[in-house]
Amino acid sequence: MKKPGSYLHRVQYYETDRMGIVHHSNHIRWMEEARLEYMRLNGVDYTEIEAAGIMMPVLGVSCSYKRSACFGDVAELAVRLLSFNGVRAVFAYRICLAGSDDLLAVGESEHCFIDGQTRKPVNLKKRMPELSGIIISLLESENK
Amino acid sequence: MKKPGSYLHRVQYYETDRMGIVHHSNHIRWMEEARLEYMRLNGVDYTEIEAAGIMMPVLGVSCSYKRSACFGDVAELAVRLLSFNGVRAVFAYRICLAGSDDLLAVGESEHCFIDGQTRKPVNLKKRMPELSGIIISLLESENK
Amino acid sequence: MKKPGSYLHRVQYYETDRMGIVHHSNHIRWMEEARLEYMRLNGVDYTEIEAAGIMMPVLGVSCSYKRSACFGDVAELAVRLLSFNGVRAVFAYRICLAGSDDLLAVGESEHCFIDGQTRKPVNLKKRMPELSGIIISLLESENK
Amino acid sequence: MKKPGSYLHRVQYYETDRMGIVHHSNHIRWMEEARLEYMRLNGVDYTEIEAAGIMMPVLGVSCSYKRSACFGDVAELAVRLLSFNGVRAVFAYRICLAGSDDLLAVGESEHCFIDGQTRKPVNLKKRMPELSGIIISLLESENK
Repeated sequence: MKKPGSYLHRVQYYETDRMGIVHHSNHIRWMEEARLEYMRLNGVDYTEIEAAGIMMPVLGVSCSYKRSACFGDVAELAVRLLSFNGVRAVFAYRICLAGSDDLLAVGESEHCFIDGQTRKPVNLKKRMPELSGIIISLLESENK
Repeated sequence: MKKPGSYLHRVQYYETDRMGIVHHSNHIRWMEEARLEYMRLNGVDYTEIEAAGIMMPVLGVSCSYKRSACFGDVAELAVRLLSFNGVRAVFAYRICLAGSDDLLAVGESEHCFIDGQTRKPVNLKKRMPELSGIIISLLESENK
Repeated sequence: MKKPGSYLHRVQYYETDRMGIVHHSNHIRWMEEARLEYMRLNGVDYTEIEAAGIMMPVLGVSCSYKRSACFGDVAELAVRLLSFNGVRAVFAYRICLAGSDDLLAVGESEHCFIDGQTRKPVNLKKRMPELSGIIISLLESENK
Repeated sequence: MKKPGSYLHRVQYYETDRMGIVHHSNHIRWMEEARLEYMRLNGVDYTEIEAAGIMMPVLGVSCSYKRSACFGDVAELAVRLLSFNGVRAVFAYRICLAGSDDLLAVGESEHCFIDGQTRKPVNLKKRMPELSGIIISLLESENK
């Protein structure tokens, strides 16, 4: 029932708060889970990026909540790469109830690439050209 | 050294990630801590709102990260009420290193008010007019 | 490769800390994930218990860490019901690297049953005899 | 009203779960907060330990819950060093409602010391004799 390429996250009890619903900070964490899985499935393993001495911190994040997620729900996240220029990358997320089009939330995250030692920005096109090429192909296939 | 009305949060070890810095999802949680404290200090105790059968879920949240926060840092959050019309409220946040103007992040959150039982939107001006008045005064004092 | 009845948890980036390994508080959360899944797979759905007005708070928890879990690892949790007398239940957990016998941690958790309204202890044998019977059968099959 | 040397933690909304009380995994995190503060107040700054290339991972943790903590509560943690031999250290925790003797939980944590690079155990008495001396004095003053 899962859409191809989407990521499933079963809502955990510890993710709920006393309002009886998932605390909104968790959607930000699910976006990370889904982003890393999306990258992995598309040949961009984040552990390889870190092994090459590069990190990918978050510059900004936003999430708009449409409907509460509850304990027992399974969330299905669709990730899309919106932009990548070697220096920055932007991802978009749609979070639905699994197997349905009931939208729980939509979000975006923006990232840069830095050297793990110097913490200075790096251009992934120069530092990891092969991997960068995979990301560019992914961007093109997402937006054609 | 703390600015009047600001909220201090000491960075916890469990808030860091393997990048060696605070995981970005925690800033969203700090914004909640600071918002509830800001409301409490201004006479709007959230536990009273919930005791009156009303909840204040998050409709949207955004955060833009300027500089990494590290274990050992103390973050200082300044909260400002941007808008309130009885049905929705928007808060803005500036997160600095305590005692400095070094900006760690800025953010916003938007909230509505719902009945805890029916989960339907309510107008706080009608349901809790006195409390609503305090919030309106706060909004005016923030923006004069 | 997964052992029958075990529960898999992929280590998330936000679960790591600046030591570069999973923060130890997360194993306690994984034990909850695995316990609820173990109960569900054995016909004891916790959402049904809560729907019947009963909660199952934690009386005690312990975890002994054998080896660090890292980002990229998949943890495999084996749950076993150690005791149940209607009033209390104890579960034991073995956490390994998925597909191996490399032990990451072992733990235990003890629970009671309370009425969600009064917050007083209840005997599940009296309040939910059918469900209680399933748990007793499970206990017997675990320990024969 | 705070007892000398104790650590205060205000319960956060995001720490509650749908049972309406603090999720039990958070007490484990509070123990870490209190332990690091206790060490800092007694002249053992963990950031200095890490700066010297040494880490202090958790070997085991346990917590016994006596009473629920709720949003709005302030928890007060008293930490005590139970043992230290250069290789291992054990801490005990009493968690009360602030300003009262109402016990919320009691816990223990056991730690070793490792080299941050090799991840091998080290003897703090040899690697950081001065700091080790402070810890030994602390142990003696705790137990005389």
